[in-house]
Amino acid sequence: MADKKIGKQTVKLSNPPSIISTASIVGPKEGEGPLKDYFDVILNDDLFGEDSWEKAESKMNREAIRQALTKINMKPEKIDYLFGGDLLNQIISSSFAARELKIPFFGLYGACSTMTESLSLAAMIVDGGYADYAAATTSSHFSSAERQFRFPLELGSQRPPTAQWTTTGSGAAILARDGDGPFITHITTGRVMDFGIKDANNMGAAMAPAAADTLIRHFEDTGFKPSSYDLIISGDLGTVGKQLTIELASKNGYDISRNYTDCGVEIFDLAKQDVHAGASGCGCSAVVFCGYLYKELQKGNIKKLLLMSTGALLSPTSTAQGESIPGIAHAVTIEAGRRS
Amino acid sequence: MADKKIGKQTVKLSNPPSIISTASIVGPKEGEGPLKDYFDVILNDDLFGEDSWEKAESKMNREAIRQALTKINMKPEKIDYLFGGDLLNQIISSSFAARELKIPFFGLYGACSTMTESLSLAAMIVDGGYADYAAATTSSHFSSAERQFRFPLELGSQRPPTAQWTTTGSGAAILARDGDGPFITHITTGRVMDFGIKDANNMGAAMAPAAADTLIRHFEDTGFKPSSYDLIISGDLGTVGKQLTIELASKNGYDISRNYTDCGVEIFDLAKQDVHAGASGCGCSAVVFCGYLYKELQKGNIKKLLLMSTGALLSPTSTAQGESIPGIAHAVTIEAGRRS
Repeated sequence: MADKKIGKQTVKLSNPPSIISTASIVGPKEGEGPLKDYFDVILNDDLFGEDSWEKAESKMNREAIRQALTKINMKPEKIDYLFGGDLLNQIISSSFAARELKIPFFGLYGACSTMTESLSLAAMIVDGGYADYAAATTSSHFSSAERQFRFPLELGSQRPPTAQWTTTGSGAAILARDGDGPFITHITTGRVMDFGIKDANNMGAAMAPAAADTLIRHFEDTGFKPSSYDLIISGDLGTVGKQLTIELASKNGYDISRNYTDCGVEIFDLAKQDVHAGASGCGCSAVVFCGYLYKELQKGNIKKLLLMSTGALLSPTSTAQGESIPGIAHAVTIEAGRRS
Repeated sequence: MADKKIGKQTVKLSNPPSIISTASIVGPKEGEGPLKDYFDVILNDDLFGEDSWEKAESKMNREAIRQALTKINMKPEKIDYLFGGDLLNQIISSSFAARELKIPFFGLYGACSTMTESLSLAAMIVDGGYADYAAATTSSHFSSAERQFRFPLELGSQRPPTAQWTTTGSGAAILARDGDGPFITHITTGRVMDFGIKDANNMGAAMAPAAADTLIRHFEDTGFKPSSYDLIISGDLGTVGKQLTIELASKNGYDISRNYTDCGVEIFDLAKQDVHAGASGCGCSAVVFCGYLYKELQKGNIKKLLLMSTGALLSPTSTAQGESIPGIAHAVTIEAGRRS
């Protein structure tokens, strides 16, 4: 058997890569939320000096990687691989960022699960001896996502209470063979799950079965319990999906109610910022991890984290053709301090 | 230094994975071309019994994986990871296929470079001891691509001579730690290159600089020469891009004119099948490899192959916003017979 497999969907890394730098850039609304002090850059204008939201998103993506590199005084040429993706059709945000950076590029699409998809692949490639350094990144933008997936913003369409607000932001992480941590130690890769939800304004419910499936599989494969972690955090399930995930995990014998939350619930002040069920978008778990969680891991306030970004794999075409919304979730264990 | 790196963009695998099975499914037009005897399934109708081209494409994707597994009497549960992507927005073809198969799934987007992107990642993950078995796949469909990227087919728009014809087809390959080959031995991962081409009907020219860049980097990193290979084959550059790639390689001191061709040139009879500059689409290199080349490697008629799928990373939105078309190319060395 493959020597790093420790269960059906989980691998344990033998030389856990160190996350040696991260950077986060967010939009104005995210910069008014409760995590504002953790972000590296808060934009005053979500066009970021560009003439379209799509170009602004790509610029955030590129600048997040550049900032993460600048912090450690590293040039893009040192990075062996860039793993990145985003929500835009043909992932133009990431591809155009990769064009400027000239780093060998693996383009990904995992919808809002992309941050842990990119961290998973980057970690295995560094752990396996294929790279000294790898970058993992993703981005999303409220305005580019709304007009692609839903309606032109100019229409002013009303949003139902289960709707989530796409995060404007990009996060980038640099992984290295050597370093002082935090370290990626375990990776549980998700399967596509579909419980038949067809409402594109209720993506939390569509993603919850995938989140619960990956979580249960992670505990079974590793032998970890919910209490093994200081914090378990999903990507962008929002209030509806978070509650469903707690219930689904509980039905399978895992009580995560005490130390589990969701990036989409934490990034905004839900009572004041009018985002209904919380945030969504691949940028959500990207900036919450690269901003808030990474810094708390560095300080030692979090010692062991399970980060699980969650994606809804729909397209406007699949919805128009009557398909339900499949979901996927990928989980990575991140430990502060010395390698265990 | 990472022990498997042998140059800036290339890794040499230490336990080269064996490609133990492949399958290919193509549309009616591909089934009339010169490679028709190599494909496992030729559809009579490009709807494949479904009510939309998108659903037909997803079914091809799923069935190609199932056929590749059936040939070796293996169940989907044995596969540790599925690496796949396609051209459709939010890669719905691959995601919906992964939903049926329930294999842990890494969604990719590399446009028409996806077949070698999926082979590259699957090979590293198997070589590195993270998986016993991995599947690599991609698909494209003429009719779903035309209406997404260009015009509704019902318009009957004219196509300029540089235009290419999106392949209807899907190919899947199963990689294993053990087996009798053919083996993936080297991987050169591409950078995003952009020479400023803005004509979405001339993608061969847009992709050629990326193809030449990866090719030159591959020769420099490995020390191989063009003559080290029985065959060097790119993904879907067509006649225009193929000629440009020969010229760009020649300017850099590499004469590939004797043993180089392009999957997009080989899959159709260009004189008779009215496809202008040849084929495109991620399905093109997928079915040419999983159909034709794999069988020739098994027979020993090809002993050493460089397969380099090539992608144009545009979207209708990026084109509408005045962006040029970036390209990318990923190359994998595939050797018949015993591990070297």
